[in-house]
Amino acid sequence: MESGTGLGSTPSTLPYYVAFSQLLGLTVVAMTGAWLGLYRGGIAWESALQFNVHPLCMVIGLIFLQGDALLVYRVFRKEAKHTTKVLHGLLHVFAFIISLVGLVAVFDYHRKMGYADLYSLHSWCGILVFVLYFVQWLVGFSFFLFPGASFSLRSRYRPQHIFFGATIFLLSVGTALLGLKEAVLFKLGNKYSMFEPEGILANVLGLLLACFGVAVLYILAQADWKRPPQAEEQALSMDFKTLTEGDSPSSQ
Amino acid sequence: MESGTGLGSTPSTLPYYVAFSQLLGLTVVAMTGAWLGLYRGGIAWESALQFNVHPLCMVIGLIFLQGDALLVYRVFRKEAKHTTKVLHGLLHVFAFIISLVGLVAVFDYHRKMGYADLYSLHSWCGILVFVLYFVQWLVGFSFFLFPGASFSLRSRYRPQHIFFGATIFLLSVGTALLGLKEAVLFKLGNKYSMFEPEGILANVLGLLLACFGVAVLYILAQADWKRPPQAEEQALSMDFKTLTEGDSPSSQ
Repeated sequence: MESGTGLGSTPSTLPYYVAFSQLLGLTVVAMTGAWLGLYRGGIAWESALQFNVHPLCMVIGLIFLQGDALLVYRVFRKEAKHTTKVLHGLLHVFAFIISLVGLVAVFDYHRKMGYADLYSLHSWCGILVFVLYFVQWLVGFSFFLFPGASFSLRSRYRPQHIFFGATIFLLSVGTALLGLKEAVLFKLGNKYSMFEPEGILANVLGLLLACFGVAVLYILAQADWKRPPQAEEQALSMDFKTLTEGDSPSSQ
Repeated sequence: MESGTGLGSTPSTLPYYVAFSQLLGLTVVAMTGAWLGLYRGGIAWESALQFNVHPLCMVIGLIFLQGDALLVYRVFRKEAKHTTKVLHGLLHVFAFIISLVGLVAVFDYHRKMGYADLYSLHSWCGILVFVLYFVQWLVGFSFFLFPGASFSLRSRYRPQHIFFGATIFLLSVGTALLGLKEAVLFKLGNKYSMFEPEGILANVLGLLLACFGVAVLYILAQADWKRPPQAEEQALSMDFKTLTEGDSPSSQ
C-alpha cells in the first residue's frame, strides 16, 4: 500500500508515472511527424502525401488522445465526478474525430491511386478497432452521460466498460505497430535488413509505441491509484449498496 | 457480483469462458500448422523449411502455453496453492523451452542462408519479450517457489508479477502479429492486395491470435474469478496482515 492514498489525496508516485507516460506519448507523436517529414516528404491532402495524414492522425487520435482519455480518472481525482466524466467523453470525441480524418485520408488516397482497400491484417484490425471504439463510446455515453440509465445498470456495466476500453486501446497500439511495419516493408523491402536509418527509426518508434501502451496500462492497473469516490458519491453508493443487496442476488 | 462465487466454489460462467479460450488457442495452433503445411512446404530442421519451426514453436510456446500458464490460478481453484504454483511454473518452463527451440531455429536458418539478424521491429520486440519472459520467470521463481522470500516480500511483489506477466503475454501476441505480417509481406508482396488465399488465411489467423489474447485477458481481469484463498491460507494471511500493519506504514 502506497503512502498518501487517503480519501482525496494523490498517491505520491502517481504524478511521476503520469508525467513519464505523457513524455512517451508526446515523443511518439513527434517521432511520427519526424518520420513522415524526413523520409516520406511531409503531409498534404491534395497529393500522394495524403497517405501520410493517416499514420499521423491515428497516432494522435487512437494512441495519444485515447490513452490520455483513459488516464483522466487517475489524474483528476478531486474534481466532481460529472466534470471528469465529461472530460473523459470529450477526449474520446476528439480522438474519434481525428482518427476519422486519418481513416478518410487513407481510403481517399487508395481511391485516387486505384489501390485495393481492406486486404491486409493491419486494415482488418484497424476497421475492427474503429468500429469497436465507436460502439464503446456510444454505449458508454448512453450508460454514463445520458441521464436514463439506473445506478444498478451503471454498476453492472462499469467493469465491462473499463475492460473493453483498455482492450480497444491496446488493440489500437497493436494495429499501429502492424501499420508501421507494413509502411516500412512496402518501401524498404530487402533494404530493411541493411539497417537503413528509416528502418531503425521505425523500429525505435514501434518500441516507444509499445512502451506508451504499457505505461498507460500500468497506471490503470494499480488498485491504489484508482480515483477514490468523493464524500457525496460514497453516501450515494452506500445507499445503493443497501438497495441492491436485497435486489436479485442470483442474477448475473 | 456473479452467483456461485462463495469460498472454494467455481463461478458458474467461468468454465465456458475457459473452454472458449482453449478452443481459440487450439484453433490458432492448428491454423498455424495448416498455414505452414499448405503454403510453406511443412516443417523440417535440416533444410530451408527450418524457418517454419520458428512460427510454430512460438505460437505453441509463447502464445498458447504462456496464456494457459496465466489461467492456471483461475482453473485450479480447489487444489493446494503450492500445487497450482508448481503447475504455473512448469507450464512456463515448457513454454520457455519450446520458444527457445523456435528462437534457435530462426537464428540457425539465418546463419545458413547468410541473412542478417535482428534488423526488424518483429525481431527487436521478440528478443525483448524473450528476455523479459526469462527474467520474469527467474524473479517469480526466486520469490514464490524458492523458500527464501518472506511473506511481506511476496505480497509486495505479487501485483507486479501479475501485471508484468499479463503484459509480457500481450507483447508476445503483438510480436506474433508482427512476425505473421512480415512473413506474408515478404512472400506475397504486392500480391497481398489481390486477396490471395494465403493472405486471407494469415489475416484470419492474426485476428484469432488477437482474440485469444483478449479472451485470456478477460478471464484474468474478472475480480470475481480470482482464486479464493483456501481456509489455511486465509488464516495465514490474516496473521500476516496483523504483522505488517504495524510494520512500516510509510514505505512504498
